Amino acid sequence: MAVGEGGLPDFKPVKGIKIGVASAGIKTEGRDDLVIFELPEGASCAGVFTQNAFCAAPVHICKENLSRSAQASSSESTSTRYLLINTGNANAGTGQQGMLDARQCCQAVSELTQTSDASILPFSTGVIGERLPADRIVSTLPVALSSLSENNWAEAAVGIMTTDTRPKGAMREVIYAGRSVLINGISKGAGMIKPNMATMLAFVGTDANISQGLCHALVAEIAEQSFNRITVDGDTSTNDACMLFASAQSDAPEIDPEHPDYPVFKQALSDVFIELAHAIIRDGEGATKFVSVRVEQANDVAEALDVAYTLAHSPLIKTALFASDPNWGRILAALGRVALPEFDLSKVAIYLSDVRIVHAGEKCSTYTEAAGQIVMNREEITIRVVLGRGQTSETVWTTDLSHDYVTINAEYRT
Amino acid sequence: MAVGEGGLPDFKPVKGIKIGVASAGIKTEGRDDLVIFELPEGASCAGVFTQNAFCAAPVHICKENLSRSAQASSSESTSTRYLLINTGNANAGTGQQGMLDARQCCQAVSELTQTSDASILPFSTGVIGERLPADRIVSTLPVALSSLSENNWAEAAVGIMTTDTRPKGAMREVIYAGRSVLINGISKGAGMIKPNMATMLAFVGTDANISQGLCHALVAEIAEQSFNRITVDGDTSTNDACMLFASAQSDAPEIDPEHPDYPVFKQALSDVFIELAHAIIRDGEGATKFVSVRVEQANDVAEALDVAYTLAHSPLIKTALFASDPNWGRILAALGRVALPEFDLSKVAIYLSDVRIVHAGEKCSTYTEAAGQIVMNREEITIRVVLGRGQTSETVWTTDLSHDYVTINAEYRT
Repeated sequence: MAVGEGGLPDFKPVKGIKIGVASAGIKTEGRDDLVIFELPEGASCAGVFTQNAFCAAPVHICKENLSRSAQASSSESTSTRYLLINTGNANAGTGQQGMLDARQCCQAVSELTQTSDASILPFSTGVIGERLPADRIVSTLPVALSSLSENNWAEAAVGIMTTDTRPKGAMREVIYAGRSVLINGISKGAGMIKPNMATMLAFVGTDANISQGLCHALVAEIAEQSFNRITVDGDTSTNDACMLFASAQSDAPEIDPEHPDYPVFKQALSDVFIELAHAIIRDGEGATKFVSVRVEQANDVAEALDVAYTLAHSPLIKTALFASDPNWGRILAALGRVALPEFDLSKVAIYLSDVRIVHAGEKCSTYTEAAGQIVMNREEITIRVVLGRGQTSETVWTTDLSHDYVTINAEYRT
Repeated sequence: MAVGEGGLPDFKPVKGIKIGVASAGIKTEGRDDLVIFELPEGASCAGVFTQNAFCAAPVHICKENLSRSAQASSSESTSTRYLLINTGNANAGTGQQGMLDARQCCQAVSELTQTSDASILPFSTGVIGERLPADRIVSTLPVALSSLSENNWAEAAVGIMTTDTRPKGAMREVIYAGRSVLINGISKGAGMIKPNMATMLAFVGTDANISQGLCHALVAEIAEQSFNRITVDGDTSTNDACMLFASAQSDAPEIDPEHPDYPVFKQALSDVFIELAHAIIRDGEGATKFVSVRVEQANDVAEALDVAYTLAHSPLIKTALFASDPNWGRILAALGRVALPEFDLSKVAIYLSDVRIVHAGEKCSTYTEAAGQIVMNREEITIRVVLGRGQTSETVWTTDLSHDYVTINAEYRT
């Protein structure tokens, strides 16, 4: 079950970015579980990673290699050339052996492609705590590399899936300085986990010419407003990663924050990220609703997010959403347990989409259960809380808590 | 469904504390929904209440009246004489009207009993956001008062139930300075809520002679270690209250923290609180497991609780518990997202009851899935995390997340 229509866009090739896909039989025989991105020399690549203290071996190596390329000039051989992604095994909780296994895979790519180890970034997603079958990955690499093509975005979107019920992709094309620039993105994730599965991954590639520094700044800023604003169950995984890479092979000049077309480009990039992030929520484990939690008039971002996440994680609100029950008492109670300093209830208003439920801290005299019910019956719902404290607004996106969520996550790992 | 055996103790009467029970037909015709405690003149009474910013009208009035009695000497007529509890309606989210309705009930008790308003404490539990039927409560008061008896503890335990599947009680008798002292307690609660139901309530009465100051200190300290260490779903309600009252009618002298028997008395009181708190978890909505989450070697209490609650609230850990799945990757991942400063993974050990799973931050070489499975099949499970950072330990108690939890909380309010 997933909310709304899925389906991939009709991807165009991004000049200079090739993708290979193959089956290494890591978990399921015959299923594509190995995806490799090849970036041209001089491409930029930056990413943001899980904040989980128990981050997986590939995350450690990604950070290490990216930091080596950041320290080197872009012409040196340490800049990122390959992103190697496997599903079926997260290589997390695997200790030193996990590091050796991930390095073995990178080493093999490096030898086959005549590039340096540091130019390879590994990503793993799947079962936690089991040893990565590095030999199987290594022996499948020649097949994956032989399939490298600019036309494999849809295949890659399928190849990185684990428990996702459908592939996730987004595409935007914008004109920058009179020339066309293309942005493709794919993502995977449906909760942290299904029986011990980790994670959310996103890969966004563009033919724009973006400096390494700007690439890093953009991925950090935009991921914060997209992937860092979604939550299924509040459990962040050990493997989350979101990557942006730019081949610089469009005819457009280098992206310049001072250029009049920069806002258009940035908005398109942001749209791709948000669409990919929303796709994860729409395919959230057991999701029957797509819920936006918007907090307005907060004093600052931290306060707005504190309120938004408290509501988005409340099991009582989430089960009410599943039941299409306009149970505003639960919203009030969840809001009330956020310890906001000097909280003045009499300034609070709460809306379910366009229906005002609470005004000046009390049930609105115009509110009717019937009006609330109409909104709650919808597949897409906005809970809007107006705090009356300041000028800051933030939105997070989440799902309901359904029987299917429990079923999916209570299934024994098989 | 509830975990373990329930059943009330064979309550003895607590000298000086009388209880009346009646049916006001607030939500269900004929069901006892009104309970009144009568304390003798000179009794001590103190409580702790919900921290929820949207606390209900009766909570406001309780705090107000207790503060008035705290400022007066114990001989004045403002000391607490009656605790009036209704189920079926929480009188929460009801604004100024809710305050008037609660005061009307207190006023009626005051007139019928010739005591001051300030000596009455009101408690409500049930549906949020609907007006309290004060008239029905007031007209039932004479029946409730006419049934006042020291022998009604079991009836009161049933009378304060809402969605509880069974009544909850605990009793201890200890010798203090050579004389017997009795402590009785009852509680209710099963999650914050069932369809819009609020709350957890606990009432502990003793015939000990406890000064008002000590009474307050004891309830604050012990509630913190009992009721403030349980969580079903992390949602605190608008009406939570935990009360301790002492009639001073035992033959024992006044309880004195310097007396050699004080630790015995305090331990017995603590046992009653913890047993009542555990009873709420065992009867938690949809609970199939009773889970202790113990965090050891933390730097301080806040850190230990931060880790413990993160684990106790993780939907992925809770569904794994429901499935009896020794899914230690989820424990690791939840632990990893607690932002502990300078967290050294290599010092972490994790146990499922007596089975060590993680040692020095990695899966223990001696751990087998079979061993983990044996523990997880039990109805009572301890998740023990040893942080290797300091000297502080804390335990919180919680339930699993089952299909029944979703069913109960997704049912439409009827």
